[in-house]
Amino acid sequence: MNSQGSSDVKSVIEKNSKSMQEAMENGDYDAFGSFFAEDVMFKMSGEEALNGREAVTNAHKPMADQNLKLVVQTNEVLDFGDYAHEIGSYEIHTADGQKVDHGQYSTLWKNIDGEWKIYRDFVSTSAGAGQH
Amino acid sequence: MNSQGSSDVKSVIEKNSKSMQEAMENGDYDAFGSFFAEDVMFKMSGEEALNGREAVTNAHKPMADQNLKLVVQTNEVLDFGDYAHEIGSYEIHTADGQKVDHGQYSTLWKNIDGEWKIYRDFVSTSAGAGQH
Repeated sequence: MNSQGSSDVKSVIEKNSKSMQEAMENGDYDAFGSFFAEDVMFKMSGEEALNGREAVTNAHKPMADQNLKLVVQTNEVLDFGDYAHEIGSYEIHTADGQKVDHGQYSTLWKNIDGEWKIYRDFVSTSAGAGQH
Repeated sequence: MNSQGSSDVKSVIEKNSKSMQEAMENGDYDAFGSFFAEDVMFKMSGEEALNGREAVTNAHKPMADQNLKLVVQTNEVLDFGDYAHEIGSYEIHTADGQKVDHGQYSTLWKNIDGEWKIYRDFVSTSAGAGQH
């Protein structure tokens, strides 16, 4: 176990995240969904948790249908061998570049048959912060 | 490493969570805050991330001042040795028992000098789900 963070796992996670952004922009849901584990649990602020690759993939379709662009940035990766924990930041932009949401995410990746898949994923908006 | 989940770590986490609930109800902020790592990162839906034990502890004071009651339930623990990943559910009740919020959390615990502390914590409301 290397709990100091592995540059190898981090680079795979960053590569996966970039591939997911591209798949989203291309409306390629199969490619997008392939990065989630079959038994993924996905939780967004203000929504009930979703379970399973199909439900999570379907939930992302409206984003692509609206031509929204997802931009993610990995901030931290802790490598636990078969699992890795990522903290990252995201922004959602309209096609003409306006930022419509931003926040952070906490993702537990799982190495399944040599491939890193998203196993537990919390996406937490910061939109509206400071307005109350 | 035992990635199948350790009943030992799970029981410690459940014990810590219960102690935190009691500290919150007693307005004992020092006891409540002691379960966070000094360098904790804490993220709630609709808020900017908070960094550090003091900021995170202070952010919880309004809850106790309003006599709100926090009820948490551990759903899953994965044990990575020096770290453990928890998924749980929470409810926030008023003093007279009305549920004012509910959701789930994703917590990365870190074993620091033999004590399990909250290191990365995402609290994600489900309030409002299905209303749009």
